[in-house]
Amino acid sequence: MEISSARAPAGSRLLATPLGAHAACRRSGQLLRPRRHTVRCSVDATRQAQGIPSAVAAEAEAAEARKRAFGVFCTTYDLKADEKTKSWKKMVNIAVSGAAGMISNHLLFQIAAGEVFGLDQPIALRLLGSERSFQALEGVAMELEDSLYPLLREVSIGIDPYEVFEDADWALLIGAKPRGPGMERAALLDINGQIFAEQGKALNAVASKNVKVIVVGNPCNTKYGYFLVYQVCPASACSALICIKNAPNIPAKNFHALTRLDENRAKCQLALKAGVFYDRVSNMTIWGNHSTTQVPDFLNAKIDGRPVKEVIKDTKWLEEEFTLTVQKRGGVLIEKWGRSSAASTAVSIVDAMKSLVTPTPEGDWFSSGVYTTGNPYGIAEDIVFSMPCRSKGDGDYELATDVEIDDFLWERIKKTEAELLAEKKCVAHLTGDGIAFCDLVNEDTMLPGEM
Amino acid sequence: MEISSARAPAGSRLLATPLGAHAACRRSGQLLRPRRHTVRCSVDATRQAQGIPSAVAAEAEAAEARKRAFGVFCTTYDLKADEKTKSWKKMVNIAVSGAAGMISNHLLFQIAAGEVFGLDQPIALRLLGSERSFQALEGVAMELEDSLYPLLREVSIGIDPYEVFEDADWALLIGAKPRGPGMERAALLDINGQIFAEQGKALNAVASKNVKVIVVGNPCNTKYGYFLVYQVCPASACSALICIKNAPNIPAKNFHALTRLDENRAKCQLALKAGVFYDRVSNMTIWGNHSTTQVPDFLNAKIDGRPVKEVIKDTKWLEEEFTLTVQKRGGVLIEKWGRSSAASTAVSIVDAMKSLVTPTPEGDWFSSGVYTTGNPYGIAEDIVFSMPCRSKGDGDYELATDVEIDDFLWERIKKTEAELLAEKKCVAHLTGDGIAFCDLVNEDTMLPGEM
Repeated sequence: MEISSARAPAGSRLLATPLGAHAACRRSGQLLRPRRHTVRCSVDATRQAQGIPSAVAAEAEAAEARKRAFGVFCTTYDLKADEKTKSWKKMVNIAVSGAAGMISNHLLFQIAAGEVFGLDQPIALRLLGSERSFQALEGVAMELEDSLYPLLREVSIGIDPYEVFEDADWALLIGAKPRGPGMERAALLDINGQIFAEQGKALNAVASKNVKVIVVGNPCNTKYGYFLVYQVCPASACSALICIKNAPNIPAKNFHALTRLDENRAKCQLALKAGVFYDRVSNMTIWGNHSTTQVPDFLNAKIDGRPVKEVIKDTKWLEEEFTLTVQKRGGVLIEKWGRSSAASTAVSIVDAMKSLVTPTPEGDWFSSGVYTTGNPYGIAEDIVFSMPCRSKGDGDYELATDVEIDDFLWERIKKTEAELLAEKKCVAHLTGDGIAFCDLVNEDTMLPGEM
Repeated sequence: MEISSARAPAGSRLLATPLGAHAACRRSGQLLRPRRHTVRCSVDATRQAQGIPSAVAAEAEAAEARKRAFGVFCTTYDLKADEKTKSWKKMVNIAVSGAAGMISNHLLFQIAAGEVFGLDQPIALRLLGSERSFQALEGVAMELEDSLYPLLREVSIGIDPYEVFEDADWALLIGAKPRGPGMERAALLDINGQIFAEQGKALNAVASKNVKVIVVGNPCNTKYGYFLVYQVCPASACSALICIKNAPNIPAKNFHALTRLDENRAKCQLALKAGVFYDRVSNMTIWGNHSTTQVPDFLNAKIDGRPVKEVIKDTKWLEEEFTLTVQKRGGVLIEKWGRSSAASTAVSIVDAMKSLVTPTPEGDWFSSGVYTTGNPYGIAEDIVFSMPCRSKGDGDYELATDVEIDDFLWERIKKTEAELLAEKKCVAHLTGDGIAFCDLVNEDTMLPGEM
């Protein structure tokens, strides 16, 4: 990041240019694409302008700054000129939708602290909210300012994905609409499908061509109180498929549907049952959809390098209770907490990102909902399905091939596959597959607390 | 931490002892002090007991486990036997009150991720809640389990400070009662004073003799929604004084009242005004009380090593708007967010702890509300007052002496000192100073959003 104001001498340690706009501010004017909303900035340029020669250029720059950046993040700095930061990596742009929600409220601070990318990676956060949540979005940006994270160099906020996703290296899609009273699941799939279709199109148009996209689709954390029981959102796998189909210029392999929270919960429950600490559990796969048809795989998982079935002899527990316990965890948390899990969901997003930017430990793997075309397991092609992945730490992954599948596991995989194929038909109008035909029964397979 | 179950061979990599109770579980039986409540455990020992020879010893151990630890944190492990963890430091015990609240919900995850103590410091969290919040406390512990933090080795929950504060190396006192409708400030000071008096006594009885205590006294984050406007809690400086007086065996120097959020906000506002990034601002002192009488000190603060007044020529802004902006920040956040700041408060607690366990950068200092006796500035003795501190990183601090105080600054210091002396009189019955005399006017000097 060689960013310096036109008015500040290069390498100046004191950049006393209150109006300096950072690179993102200035760059935005050059793009040829529709602008539908204005990204606001918390800095009052007039109040800030004291001491600056009144020039047309300065005013134009201030106008750009107002559009793009938030508060103190509008300031000028030069990472290369500072001894402490000159060895840092190139800025990474992370766009987050649903940025005013509770999951994001944990996630943004964890990312800004360096938990995903380490302590030499400067970070730009691009926060996407809605008209309704815009004030809360400003609140989040203010709290990020007040946290003085050294790595956090840019924060911008907005309500137009075409603005906010610009040059994004990562897009974390957390926002979706919760199900209202009496709303059928198919109707919700359509409403949220439209959101993910639009976001896919926006990513296709303006994001980095190698953007990594993680679809969380867990919007249930914006409501509080004891009256909340269950809300429903579309399964993230289906949302991710819609995104893929609307972003033809981005490799399908770059899209992930989050199943890491399920993986983490499954590891914890196996550890608890075996009476060991959770760091002993490895090779935990969640197969399929992020719903009650999900398959936490105890056949391939290991405890201290040994097959789980050798350590936990209680087959009935493994075959029945284990999966139910993992699936019900979110619901139990809602009962305890009065709202769904936000902190641990955020941690699992951090884990999912870290798994793509650090090499997978030898022999281990992680779960992610990824595009099935070309998969070695015989799972239907052209859907998004959680499977075991390994990464060299370059942002990419390969599917694990050293996986055993027995009849019991296969039968369950087919069930979650059938659900995903049915969901796919429901959103055919959004994926370019013709006319939607929705034969989803209204029986919920959505996870409590994540629905 | 050399912890291993009696039934597991030392150094065994697979500790398949579902009933293994960790050291804290077993140790607790040896203490001679009143037990007033039972610390519950989420693990159903009976369900877990499969495969274990039914023995009296195992049952006794399970009973201890039920009392102390939560869920998977009841499991046995031996850090010294594992290649990955054998070089780790000795476990640090961190007790947190108000553990079911929103600030804690951020703070606990930040601490567990290693943000304070680094990646070789195993962590035990002891969570203090109330009868009313107990279920939420279980929810927090469950989310901590699901987060699979490698450093987080013990989590216990309880409602008795005499249980929860046992052997605490750190106590973060975040819980207090918010002001109800029509409640006078003096009455609230008394109610919360009683809580801090009890917690001080408990720390005195059972905590590590060198425990470091950070009093936040910001309980406003348990209510949500658009109807929330302002709540009121006692100023943390007064609460810290009550703690000190009720814990005569713990050095008074070990108690801190949090003013770091104010310091961070002040730094951010100076950066914003000067048009520089916030990492350029140093030597920022908050003097006095965490209330509207607080004094953000622009006389001694520096921007890029230069006095602030040399960089920001707008004296009127410094003398008037700056302080108001810092004080009003919490209130603005409530308006934006619909609730008070939790994430950035948690970050400031992390910052406050880090400042005590890492050496202060050469020439810089940090603010903390500390015991005034022996202070070099002429501030009244025997109160808690935020002042500039430096640490060698050993948990201790010294007051900075290279500080300039002019008439303008001194006048404001005297005003916040007067308030603290008045608050002290109100809680005389709790500090052993005789009969309380409360001439506090009901005019609030409490900060919006932190009250």
